[in-house]
Amino acid sequence: MRQYYHHKEPVTLECGAILPEITVAYNTFGRMNESRDNVVWVMHALTADSDVADWWPHTVEKGRFLDPEDHFIVCANVIGSCYGSTGPISENPLSGEPYFGDFPDVTVRDMVACHRLLARHLGINRIDTVIGSSLGGFQAVEWLVSDPGFARKAVLIATDYRCHPWLAAINKSMVMAIEADMTYGERSREAGARGLAAARAIGLLSYRGQAAFDATQNDPDSRRGLFERRAHSYQAYQGKKLCDRFDAYSYVKMCRSADSHDIARGRGSASEALARITARCLIVAISSDILFPPSYHREMAAMIPGAEYKEIDSDFAHDGFLIENEKINRLICDFYSQTDNRQL
Amino acid sequence: MRQYYHHKEPVTLECGAILPEITVAYNTFGRMNESRDNVVWVMHALTADSDVADWWPHTVEKGRFLDPEDHFIVCANVIGSCYGSTGPISENPLSGEPYFGDFPDVTVRDMVACHRLLARHLGINRIDTVIGSSLGGFQAVEWLVSDPGFARKAVLIATDYRCHPWLAAINKSMVMAIEADMTYGERSREAGARGLAAARAIGLLSYRGQAAFDATQNDPDSRRGLFERRAHSYQAYQGKKLCDRFDAYSYVKMCRSADSHDIARGRGSASEALARITARCLIVAISSDILFPPSYHREMAAMIPGAEYKEIDSDFAHDGFLIENEKINRLICDFYSQTDNRQL
Repeated sequence: MRQYYHHKEPVTLECGAILPEITVAYNTFGRMNESRDNVVWVMHALTADSDVADWWPHTVEKGRFLDPEDHFIVCANVIGSCYGSTGPISENPLSGEPYFGDFPDVTVRDMVACHRLLARHLGINRIDTVIGSSLGGFQAVEWLVSDPGFARKAVLIATDYRCHPWLAAINKSMVMAIEADMTYGERSREAGARGLAAARAIGLLSYRGQAAFDATQNDPDSRRGLFERRAHSYQAYQGKKLCDRFDAYSYVKMCRSADSHDIARGRGSASEALARITARCLIVAISSDILFPPSYHREMAAMIPGAEYKEIDSDFAHDGFLIENEKINRLICDFYSQTDNRQL
Repeated sequence: MRQYYHHKEPVTLECGAILPEITVAYNTFGRMNESRDNVVWVMHALTADSDVADWWPHTVEKGRFLDPEDHFIVCANVIGSCYGSTGPISENPLSGEPYFGDFPDVTVRDMVACHRLLARHLGINRIDTVIGSSLGGFQAVEWLVSDPGFARKAVLIATDYRCHPWLAAINKSMVMAIEADMTYGERSREAGARGLAAARAIGLLSYRGQAAFDATQNDPDSRRGLFERRAHSYQAYQGKKLCDRFDAYSYVKMCRSADSHDIARGRGSASEALARITARCLIVAISSDILFPPSYHREMAAMIPGAEYKEIDSDFAHDGFLIENEKINRLICDFYSQTDNRQL
C-alpha cells in the first residue's frame, strides 16, 4: 500500500531552486527487526513507482532477494516523477496549481537527498542493502558515495556511474520528440502526449535492441503488407500505454535527472568518488544490454573497492533486468550469503 | 552535374496510386565505352542524392572502385525524395501545387522501376556492377531479383534483403516523432520540421551506436554541467542540419519505402527470391553496425548463389559505410579483379 511522507519544510535543489515542501510516496514490505539491521532499499527506474512488488515480478516473495519475512523493504517514488512524490503534476503550494513546466530540473543527487529525508522520517540510520537498476542504480551508487557508512551492501544492476554520451544522446532524442509536440507547454497533464508516445518508442529501442525486436515482432513472409509491420503497432501501442500512466512533464524531468548523473561532479574524478564506497558491492551487467553495456559495469567495478562483477545472459537487452528475475535472484541470494559468511 | 529525365507518361505505383508523370534526377561520371559494358550504377541511402562523388568521399576518383576513367557511373535520386526526382515537394501536374501530404507511399520496388525507366532512357540494357549501401542496398538487391540478367556483379553494403522488425521499429519511432509535430500536415516545406529534427536524432542513434557516441561526444569530468551534455548539442545540431536540406514529407516517404522492403513479397520465400540472382555478389557488413548487424548479411549471403561475404571493422557502426571508404575500396577493387579473372 502506498504511503506518503509529507516533508513540510523547504528543500533546496542542486540547481538552486527551492521546493517549499515535498511529499515522498513509498511502499514498504515486511517489518523492521529488533536490531534494525534488515532494511533493503530498492530504487526504481525511469517510469516505475514505489510498488516494487508490482513492477519487478517475483522479487517480493518468499525465498527471493526481497523476501518480506526476512527484510524490511522500502521503495520510494523519486521526486520529479508522477506516482505520488512531488513532481510536475503536483500542486505548487505557492500558486495552488500544478507545477507543470514550472517544476525545476532535479538531479540524481536531489532524488537521493529526498530518499534520505524519508529514511530519517522512518528512523532508518543504516540499511543492510541498497538495490538499484537503471536510473535506480544511479541513485544507489550516488547514495553509496555521498553517505559511505549508510549501506552495508549494494547491488547495482544494468546501470552506470555517470551519464555516458550515448545515454545523453538518447535522452536528448526523446526530449526533442516531446518538444516537437507543440502542446508541450500547455498547462495540462495531457500536454505533449504525442511527443511522449514517440519518446517512449525511442526508449524501447534502447531497452530491447535488435535481437529482441526481431525475435518478438516478426511478421512471417506470407503476412507482410506493403508498408505495415507488426513492430509499428507494437511501438504505437507502447507509446499510447505510457501516455495512459505518465505525463510528458515528468518524463522530461526523469530524462534530465539521468543526464545529471555524474559521480565525479565536485569530487575530482570518478575513481576518486567511487573509492569512497565502503559497502560490499555486487555489479550485474546484462550481456545484450545496448543502453548500459557490460563495459560500463566493468569500468565501475574496477573503481569500487572489492566490488564483485557478474554478467547475465538475456535475449532482452536492458529489459532483462525486469525479465530475468530468476537469474538475478540467484546472483543476489548468493551475494547475500557470501557477505554474511564474511561477517561470521 | 545533376541531369533530369522527364518521363512524360503515367507511372503506376505498387500501392495502386498513379503518378501522371515523373522526373528522375541523376548524375553520371565518366563515359560509356564502345562495348557498353562499363556501367556501374550506385544507389543512394535515406537522405542522400544523386551526386555520389559528394556524399561518398574518395570513391569517384582515379584508382578507386568508381574510377571515372574506367567506368560510366550512374546515380539517380529515388522517387519520394527531394533532390530533383519526383516526390512530395514536387509539383503535382494535376493541381499545379506541390504534393506535400498527398504524395503516395512508394516502395523500394517503385524506386527500382523508376531507375529502370532512366536506364532505358540512357540506352542501358545491361550494367557491369550495381552498388548499394543501406536503403541503396535495398534497391540493389531488389533490382538483382526482379531483373536477374541486368547486372553482372553486385556489391551490397550494410544493408538487408528485407525490413527486419528492428528497422521497422526505428522507422516507426521516427515517424511518430514527426507526427507528434502538429505542423506536419500543413502545406509547406517547413511542415513538421521540429519532428524531423527529432527523427534525425533518432536515426543518428542507430547509425552511430554507443561506442561512437561515447568516443566522440564525451565531456571531460571537469567540464560537465548539471544537465547539459555535448551529446545534446550534437543531436540538436544534426537535427537542425537535416531540416536545412530535407523535408518531413520526403523523410516519411523514405522511412515508409524502407518499411516496404521485402524481397519475398509475391515470390514465395526470401530464399526462393534470392536464388534467382545470377550476378556475382559481394556482401559487406560492418562489425559494429547495430542497424544492419552482420547476422543479416550472413543470412543474405547464404541465400544468394555464390555470394562472397566480407566484414569490415569500424568504430562508426552503420556510418562506417561512408567513413571506411578506404577499406571498402580495397574490398571492391579485389572483388572486381577476382570476377574479371573468372571470366578469362
